[in-house]
Amino acid sequence: MRYEEYTIEGRNAVLEAFRAGKTIDKLFVQNGAKDGPIQSILREAKKGDTIINFVEKERLDQMSQSGKHQGVIAQAAAYEYAEVEDILAAAEAKGEAPFLLILDGIEDPHNLGAIIRTANQAGAHGIIIPKRRAVGLTAVVARTSAGAINYTPVAKVTNIVRTMEDLKKRGIWFVCADMDGDVMYRVNMTGPIGLVIGNEGSGVSRLVKEACDFTASIPMKGDVDSLNASVAAGILAYEIVRQRSAVKS
Amino acid sequence: MRYEEYTIEGRNAVLEAFRAGKTIDKLFVQNGAKDGPIQSILREAKKGDTIINFVEKERLDQMSQSGKHQGVIAQAAAYEYAEVEDILAAAEAKGEAPFLLILDGIEDPHNLGAIIRTANQAGAHGIIIPKRRAVGLTAVVARTSAGAINYTPVAKVTNIVRTMEDLKKRGIWFVCADMDGDVMYRVNMTGPIGLVIGNEGSGVSRLVKEACDFTASIPMKGDVDSLNASVAAGILAYEIVRQRSAVKS
Repeated sequence: MRYEEYTIEGRNAVLEAFRAGKTIDKLFVQNGAKDGPIQSILREAKKGDTIINFVEKERLDQMSQSGKHQGVIAQAAAYEYAEVEDILAAAEAKGEAPFLLILDGIEDPHNLGAIIRTANQAGAHGIIIPKRRAVGLTAVVARTSAGAINYTPVAKVTNIVRTMEDLKKRGIWFVCADMDGDVMYRVNMTGPIGLVIGNEGSGVSRLVKEACDFTASIPMKGDVDSLNASVAAGILAYEIVRQRSAVKS
Repeated sequence: MRYEEYTIEGRNAVLEAFRAGKTIDKLFVQNGAKDGPIQSILREAKKGDTIINFVEKERLDQMSQSGKHQGVIAQAAAYEYAEVEDILAAAEAKGEAPFLLILDGIEDPHNLGAIIRTANQAGAHGIIIPKRRAVGLTAVVARTSAGAINYTPVAKVTNIVRTMEDLKKRGIWFVCADMDGDVMYRVNMTGPIGLVIGNEGSGVSRLVKEACDFTASIPMKGDVDSLNASVAAGILAYEIVRQRSAVKS
């Protein structure tokens, strides 16, 4: 288990990390840097579909731990990501209808960690997160997951909608967590399912919502806007557990 | 709304705060301080059942914001606590069977905040927390509750078990969240109920567990120990919501 998140600094170190196949979550390159080694790094980054951020030198100076970034800093994932195929394979190995969570832009590492923990306990086969505008598998996420990150695969995809379209062709239905939906008790969630949870502030984005087959809501009797994202994910995931166990018994 | 938590420093300021009836969560007094003003402060603190911590001068120096603590610092609650009676009155005013949450030692302010938010959305009438070994209504709790702290009353009691015994005489049943219990779907939680959630690490304490009428568990299919406390509280609170709505319809 590697709980430590780490940054890789300097041209050679970053280039080597890419070539060694390390998962780089984010690459920060100094604005205007265009020499040979930087070009090689950018090529490797594009191959791996890494998010590249061009920033001012001051920003790199702030981020740098060694003080010797040479215009480039990479943030490596604390954990390895899985592939979407691994998630489907896990369901198949258990002889269960696939049950996965799609997180459309969870930003708070404590929420992501708690959701991975919940997914593990609820018997979900995996989690899919987007590359952009979302937290990745950082050290805080690993810690908050209470070890569940070692068991429940998390895949990172470039385009959530495209991944959903692919999965639909393989028989998975998508249910969007949204306040405008039918009350969750009345939505049938017993089949192969992907539960879509939105961003903490803005909820599920429009295109992702449109790609969903149905919408389920948690009954809200309160005076405030919504629930904490990880609590909402837990309540909905366990409604799926309840419905599936009722079907079995 | 007062979202700010604050410390009160110095003998006169602290004594005045007590006499003005401010809710002091914790009092820190320098080891060995025994003069008249300190004695008066200790008397007031004991009247209000405030937790008193005797600490070294260095600790007070660290905590001090003014640099002039004179051997005493008080931490005032960011929010006012309710009485247990207020919670019962809220249920009665709505013509509903009481639904309350007993938190037996939640320590993480983010968990307490998320649980207050969930309680509000689930239509619970209030929350009871203990004075000792638990986080109070701090600024972080208020913020994490997303405003729910302004609507859902939180009472703080000296002895959780004694409060439960009193409430039992008034017809409330207590269900303990514990992994050894019956699966929650099979526990009838439709009547006047207090849902007991334990500490993040150690769960519900022995005496509190013994005071409960029944035990309910969340089905756990995973590889890790348990769920995040606020997620578990959410799942159980919403099982109560589901059972109550099924009874009504």
